[in-house]
Amino acid sequence: MRILIIGAAGMVGSKLAASLAGDPGSGVAAMTLVDMVEPTAPAEAGMPVATGVLDITDAGAVAEMIAAKPDVIFHLAAIVSGEAEADFDKGYAVNFDGTRNIFDAIRSHANYHPRVVFTSSIAVYGAPFPDPIPDDYFLTPLTSYGTQKLMGEAMLADYSRRGIFDGVGLRLPTICVRPGRPNKAASGFFSNILREPLVGQEAILPVSDQVRHWHASPRAAVGFLRHAMGMDTGPMGARRSVTLPGLSATVAEQIEALRRAAGDDAVKLIRRVEDPAIVKMVAGWPTRFEAGRARDLGFVAESSFDEIIAAHVEDELGGKIGGT
Amino acid sequence: MRILIIGAAGMVGSKLAASLAGDPGSGVAAMTLVDMVEPTAPAEAGMPVATGVLDITDAGAVAEMIAAKPDVIFHLAAIVSGEAEADFDKGYAVNFDGTRNIFDAIRSHANYHPRVVFTSSIAVYGAPFPDPIPDDYFLTPLTSYGTQKLMGEAMLADYSRRGIFDGVGLRLPTICVRPGRPNKAASGFFSNILREPLVGQEAILPVSDQVRHWHASPRAAVGFLRHAMGMDTGPMGARRSVTLPGLSATVAEQIEALRRAAGDDAVKLIRRVEDPAIVKMVAGWPTRFEAGRARDLGFVAESSFDEIIAAHVEDELGGKIGGT
Repeated sequence: MRILIIGAAGMVGSKLAASLAGDPGSGVAAMTLVDMVEPTAPAEAGMPVATGVLDITDAGAVAEMIAAKPDVIFHLAAIVSGEAEADFDKGYAVNFDGTRNIFDAIRSHANYHPRVVFTSSIAVYGAPFPDPIPDDYFLTPLTSYGTQKLMGEAMLADYSRRGIFDGVGLRLPTICVRPGRPNKAASGFFSNILREPLVGQEAILPVSDQVRHWHASPRAAVGFLRHAMGMDTGPMGARRSVTLPGLSATVAEQIEALRRAAGDDAVKLIRRVEDPAIVKMVAGWPTRFEAGRARDLGFVAESSFDEIIAAHVEDELGGKIGGT
Repeated sequence: MRILIIGAAGMVGSKLAASLAGDPGSGVAAMTLVDMVEPTAPAEAGMPVATGVLDITDAGAVAEMIAAKPDVIFHLAAIVSGEAEADFDKGYAVNFDGTRNIFDAIRSHANYHPRVVFTSSIAVYGAPFPDPIPDDYFLTPLTSYGTQKLMGEAMLADYSRRGIFDGVGLRLPTICVRPGRPNKAASGFFSNILREPLVGQEAILPVSDQVRHWHASPRAAVGFLRHAMGMDTGPMGARRSVTLPGLSATVAEQIEALRRAAGDDAVKLIRRVEDPAIVKMVAGWPTRFEAGRARDLGFVAESSFDEIIAAHVEDELGGKIGGT
């Protein structure tokens, strides 16, 4: 099986590539990793790995890349919510037209029917919501990013129904604990308040600890993508996108899990500094999904924040809590 | 108020134009009617009416048309379901890219914020369904036409949320009784079995009389569009498309209404010739909607097939049943 990962320089894409590269049982015979900046090939890959630069807004370059007819295409490339909101044209060009370029490049080949795994987002949902949100709840995004993902999902389903490819759309939960440095994403604090105290650093909590949200670890995200690569799509019928399972937890529950993992001193590193702008945005975010359909299709997430923190400590901190 | 009707040569568009032209209380000061073929101006219009040809896939021509900055734009232009399914490229080009051309032409003008009324369709829904289908049920189209309408709805909401225009999307029920000659639309029989016997002609019923579907008259459709032209969109929030009220009825109920209006002899003109292809398609169509949200917003449809038939006899047959 030859696979192409578009968006392989991102956090989830690079972890997916590393996971496949290091797994002799993955069934992957060759891997091509592309992104706006050239991705780094995983160390000690068990198969040939090619890397390259691809701008998905360049239809010609996309067509050239697809001409190699990979068996599985992971399409993870997108600009994030904040940027898509700030730059209308760029958001539609990358997140929508870029996606369409990939789908149409596949369509241009007769007798080519790859598996296409497309990362969507819970940003396709927009408040007000019931709690929990059922799998058949309507999609009413409140951002251009969510709109573009919804439009991508719609095309994914139609192209799959018409036999152009075999698509799976994954509405990822908020990924937590996100490794790396604090970033400016409005949702960043969910990760910051765990990641920073775990290495002895201060973190800011800008919202009430009663805020509830929907989380899965980077490890779970890689698991979702790998499951989508090989799953039987028959039971999906024409409904090709799923809201993935996750863990619904309040910030207070996150903090208690941090206390169990790293003690009171770690919890004391969380400074509460309310940010009204973030409070307002977070109020429109979903808190809990049923996600029974995805569970029935075999997707699995964590069931406690203790697990999520343990995965982070193992995967990112070499098992060591407390900083250097 | 200056209005532009795109798709004004179609059945609903021409009836809308005639309705506004003949109503001194409509508030319309000038009207421009365009379509792929030049529409006919309504007779005895109470305001200046311009007509023209517009191909919405021609972004430059669309921009020129929008440059006149009408206060209200009705976007009714589309190729139908069967054609969009048969011709993939044309369907996306007209129904999706054409819609985007209109929306982006509006976006190119600062300080311009028209009301945009966009006709969507219940084809955005796809089986299996609950009965009735609630307003917050998800959209899972089973045709490329339905997919293109869904993508248009998504953009309509996003462009409205961003303040580019003030959009209302209308998911029209199946229009019945559709005037004119029998056409090849798979849903045509719902109209044929009333329209033809009402003028002494035979009609074919290709499905069981237990088939249930969702209907509104052409008169109700014009009412929906006129209501959407002037309504307060504030209560819609970011959810800019609505499933319109209609009448849920079985074919048997249609036939009984025909019997009440035109007698047993008219009913005898319906020949039952099952068409397995149509039976199969119809099985995937929605049967009943709650549509409470649209009713709360002031949209009104018929409550019996007697009313629908009476409207047809009045509007299309000059009050006369039974043919020439």
